[in-house]
Amino acid sequence: MATDPFGSAWWIERIHDELFLQTKLQAVLFTGKTRFQDVAIIETAAFGKTLILDGKTQSAAIDEFVYHEALAHPALLLHPNPKRVFIAGGGEGATLREVLRHGSVEQAVMADIDGDLVELCREHLPEWHAGAFDDARTVLAPGDARAALEQSKRKYDVIVIDVTDPAEAGPSLPIFTKSFYEMALERLTPQGVLVTQAGPAALGMTQVHGAIVHTLEAAASRAFPYRANVISFGCEWGFALVSKGMTPDSLSPEEVDRRIAKRVKGTLRFLDGASWPGLFSAPKWLREALVAETTVLTEDTQVFLA
Amino acid sequence: MATDPFGSAWWIERIHDELFLQTKLQAVLFTGKTRFQDVAIIETAAFGKTLILDGKTQSAAIDEFVYHEALAHPALLLHPNPKRVFIAGGGEGATLREVLRHGSVEQAVMADIDGDLVELCREHLPEWHAGAFDDARTVLAPGDARAALEQSKRKYDVIVIDVTDPAEAGPSLPIFTKSFYEMALERLTPQGVLVTQAGPAALGMTQVHGAIVHTLEAAASRAFPYRANVISFGCEWGFALVSKGMTPDSLSPEEVDRRIAKRVKGTLRFLDGASWPGLFSAPKWLREALVAETTVLTEDTQVFLA
Amino acid sequence: MATDPFGSAWWIERIHDELFLQTKLQAVLFTGKTRFQDVAIIETAAFGKTLILDGKTQSAAIDEFVYHEALAHPALLLHPNPKRVFIAGGGEGATLREVLRHGSVEQAVMADIDGDLVELCREHLPEWHAGAFDDARTVLAPGDARAALEQSKRKYDVIVIDVTDPAEAGPSLPIFTKSFYEMALERLTPQGVLVTQAGPAALGMTQVHGAIVHTLEAAASRAFPYRANVISFGCEWGFALVSKGMTPDSLSPEEVDRRIAKRVKGTLRFLDGASWPGLFSAPKWLREALVAETTVLTEDTQVFLA
Amino acid sequence: MATDPFGSAWWIERIHDELFLQTKLQAVLFTGKTRFQDVAIIETAAFGKTLILDGKTQSAAIDEFVYHEALAHPALLLHPNPKRVFIAGGGEGATLREVLRHGSVEQAVMADIDGDLVELCREHLPEWHAGAFDDARTVLAPGDARAALEQSKRKYDVIVIDVTDPAEAGPSLPIFTKSFYEMALERLTPQGVLVTQAGPAALGMTQVHGAIVHTLEAAASRAFPYRANVISFGCEWGFALVSKGMTPDSLSPEEVDRRIAKRVKGTLRFLDGASWPGLFSAPKWLREALVAETTVLTEDTQVFLA
Repeated sequence: MATDPFGSAWWIERIHDELFLQTKLQAVLFTGKTRFQDVAIIETAAFGKTLILDGKTQSAAIDEFVYHEALAHPALLLHPNPKRVFIAGGGEGATLREVLRHGSVEQAVMADIDGDLVELCREHLPEWHAGAFDDARTVLAPGDARAALEQSKRKYDVIVIDVTDPAEAGPSLPIFTKSFYEMALERLTPQGVLVTQAGPAALGMTQVHGAIVHTLEAAASRAFPYRANVISFGCEWGFALVSKGMTPDSLSPEEVDRRIAKRVKGTLRFLDGASWPGLFSAPKWLREALVAETTVLTEDTQVFLA
Repeated sequence: MATDPFGSAWWIERIHDELFLQTKLQAVLFTGKTRFQDVAIIETAAFGKTLILDGKTQSAAIDEFVYHEALAHPALLLHPNPKRVFIAGGGEGATLREVLRHGSVEQAVMADIDGDLVELCREHLPEWHAGAFDDARTVLAPGDARAALEQSKRKYDVIVIDVTDPAEAGPSLPIFTKSFYEMALERLTPQGVLVTQAGPAALGMTQVHGAIVHTLEAAASRAFPYRANVISFGCEWGFALVSKGMTPDSLSPEEVDRRIAKRVKGTLRFLDGASWPGLFSAPKWLREALVAETTVLTEDTQVFLA
Repeated sequence: MATDPFGSAWWIERIHDELFLQTKLQAVLFTGKTRFQDVAIIETAAFGKTLILDGKTQSAAIDEFVYHEALAHPALLLHPNPKRVFIAGGGEGATLREVLRHGSVEQAVMADIDGDLVELCREHLPEWHAGAFDDARTVLAPGDARAALEQSKRKYDVIVIDVTDPAEAGPSLPIFTKSFYEMALERLTPQGVLVTQAGPAALGMTQVHGAIVHTLEAAASRAFPYRANVISFGCEWGFALVSKGMTPDSLSPEEVDRRIAKRVKGTLRFLDGASWPGLFSAPKWLREALVAETTVLTEDTQVFLA
Repeated sequence: MATDPFGSAWWIERIHDELFLQTKLQAVLFTGKTRFQDVAIIETAAFGKTLILDGKTQSAAIDEFVYHEALAHPALLLHPNPKRVFIAGGGEGATLREVLRHGSVEQAVMADIDGDLVELCREHLPEWHAGAFDDARTVLAPGDARAALEQSKRKYDVIVIDVTDPAEAGPSLPIFTKSFYEMALERLTPQGVLVTQAGPAALGMTQVHGAIVHTLEAAASRAFPYRANVISFGCEWGFALVSKGMTPDSLSPEEVDRRIAKRVKGTLRFLDGASWPGLFSAPKWLREALVAETTVLTEDTQVFLA
């Protein structure tokens, strides 16, 4: 916007009170409010077009493929033949896009509590959804994900939880609870897989990640945390899955490549067989930090991203 | 734009390499390039709508009245009956607006080298020009101010120089020279007044201001520097005028109020009789700094705002 | 500290929530806490050595002379023969330094509530106090300024109030009240003058300044606000005085120069006769803003700098 | 340092011109210059004590263990019985510390071109070297690493390159060249391993990493890049090793744990068998980016970190 490399506009994102990421702002494409959150769509020189909700980056052009591939594909690949998929949240439509790349998928039900946000993303983030909202297999469920799952007894092969981080008074809090996980796990088919984004997985910032993993384990006996480097988030990001069928370690890199080749349309950029072991092979300090975190998230016991 | 008071968009303007002003950015209304400069029109929480050229604030909603009143009115009030006024630069149209408030003015010729900028301001800054471009007394001269003055022998009662700061390779450099001032002074009527914006007048930042004042004195024997506090510029701002007729000290506060009451339409917010002495009553250190600066600006000897 | 002009240490000072001043940090000379406040003494490239209390710049090498001359000398010069002076606050010792430059002064009593701060300034800011603490005329009163004035019936020719800005739960709040002003005015000799620093005097930031001026008027019928540009404060700064004797407009520039020449040791850098009218000649908008502010500060009605 | 969470001191580190990391500064412990570089030792709230050279973070208390374990141990563990180790650079002494934890090591020769820096680290970073400089097995070679290796024909089991990033006119440039790698590889014993820190391995920032890996391959036919998340560097960080003996994939997690248990004193926090596969299992996009980068670094062909 300006000749001077510094005297100009910047996006300064709080990672926490003592750590901020500062990126050169090139354009503000949209700002507004929905019933649930502040929305900004900006463009930065470092990360490209970026969706911001309540001041926090949700996904950015440069690495939304990392986040969305890391979120969707491990769960789908672990399932022998995923036909029905449920997505909680996922307003951008990019998780939906990745899910629909699996040829086996016959129906993808997406329930984002914020219908206005979905409309905004549909209009302003076409590179994110890439037409997924218009796919004949897509069903947009009204209301929030918890209600959508509770009110129907239908079962899903894969449930993908792509909601915003737990924040005080934020709309996603009821999703990060043992009771939600228990209910959601009941909606899985026998070999079903549930996966959730699970907060920062960086040194000194593992409390939320650890609590989510521990809560999943409280609901399901075993959870598999993993992480990916999402540079636009300012730190390593955590995910966690629960599988009623295969476990991640039982899927060889070769089998991952075979399944991708057979099932997934187009070309993945983040995930393949060679990178599969890396996903689940965390540094020692992180594994120990997860073990040390013993909070079980409930309606009454919550942790927030500062 | 965001709930978090800090994790959000900011305009960070360089005052100099070691001093920046950081204001919360609320909207980016326009960004683009003309043939001469980068243009951004932004809105900040602290200063409101703001015009930025090449990364530097030109005027902001909160205090453009300070800058434009301080630039235009002293010169016009010193003249007994200003009829013809020439404005060099002044793309926003706000200097023109202030000039046209003087009922005596019959013609205001404005020559801004950047016609595209004038069009942008006309469209995006209606609060600045307030219709001045459509006033029957307005003449937009094609080309740059220097050429416009040189090519005609017409005389003016007041010449107002409202160009961007001198910057390396910037379009305003030829305006900040002894030769320009000499030529412009020849275009003044016998009691004519020339005034120019004259750079920062703050501690440690007086070189440009001092050089402009000294160059005016080299062209006209006597110049009157003055300053006003323009908070959106990040520091006290300097102006300087040369008068062939009355000098500022010969105009009493009472006479200033009388002239304003008689000549000026609407209400001034910055200038009146009571504030008139303050304009020309600079701190001792500043007057000494101006005396100490002996650079005469020429085509070969230039100083820049860093 | 670093080769890179930006990848390095910065002091980022909040002017208000939407406006910050960012200066390159060169050294941190001291950080600590007293019983009353956080103290930092830093050095920035733009402003030199700087005293910070509770995160706010108190005075900086580049322009502490502006602040302290503007605070002390107008009051002292208005008095015909100031012998006894009381300073409330003034921990750096620079207000004391300026007071003691007046040869007529026989005793200067200084009461800063924060004795530890005074000791820190004595050690780390020798350029500020310049030996004033060791002057035989100096009396350091124990305890806070209010108590010191209340507990003695002694009268002063000049009272200088140099305390930190009013902040929620800050130590200076009781000083910014009608009751304090009333009591202090009773301690003035017949031609006595009271002066106080009076907060920011910049567009959009006049509430505190206006309330202080209005409160002084409530206590004394007439107050004279004035302002000076203190660039290290990030904006124009307000002061206000009440005089039982001469008023500022009754002192001509020539008489100001005479009094300075006769009374003041050394050379003033900010104030002289030529700049005297400018001090009291505020822009129209500021004078109107002060008139519009009708808050009287009391123990129950307070305004804070955000 | 200050009550206000933002109005205070910050370290703002340039990742590149459009991306900065901003951390709250708590103390500046040392600033100075050696013959080769600017040195600052600071303390930030997010990362603790941090060594800065020429404005770039070298290592920080929070995660220097990640960087130094990731740099030293893979190479040492791949060797069947490392006795003699050469360290190029490594001024903090932390790479030396990790090397010396291997009981098999009989001699560790360290050559850092900047002897003054080594002394500063010895004094100010005792947590980093942890006494390693005083270990009887340590030999500090005078002069720079290239000269030290060239001038002696002695062979090493492991060579660890821990120099600053390649920067224009920086002291480390001659180390990032094919000719250096070729010479250094000649100094390896038959099963010897050479490892180097290898620049950022993050999206949009892989040029230096790719060039280093490609240059190693030009010198040695096969190189193994790997990466670790070093949050204080602001992005994922790359490393690369060349092994004349075992390759990383031939070492099972179990064997890694066995070797650590048998050889390494104390407890590793970053590396163990379970995390070993993750080190070498990069995302698909990164592996493709490395393949795509074909620059061979020579004395005449260089790439710099911006």
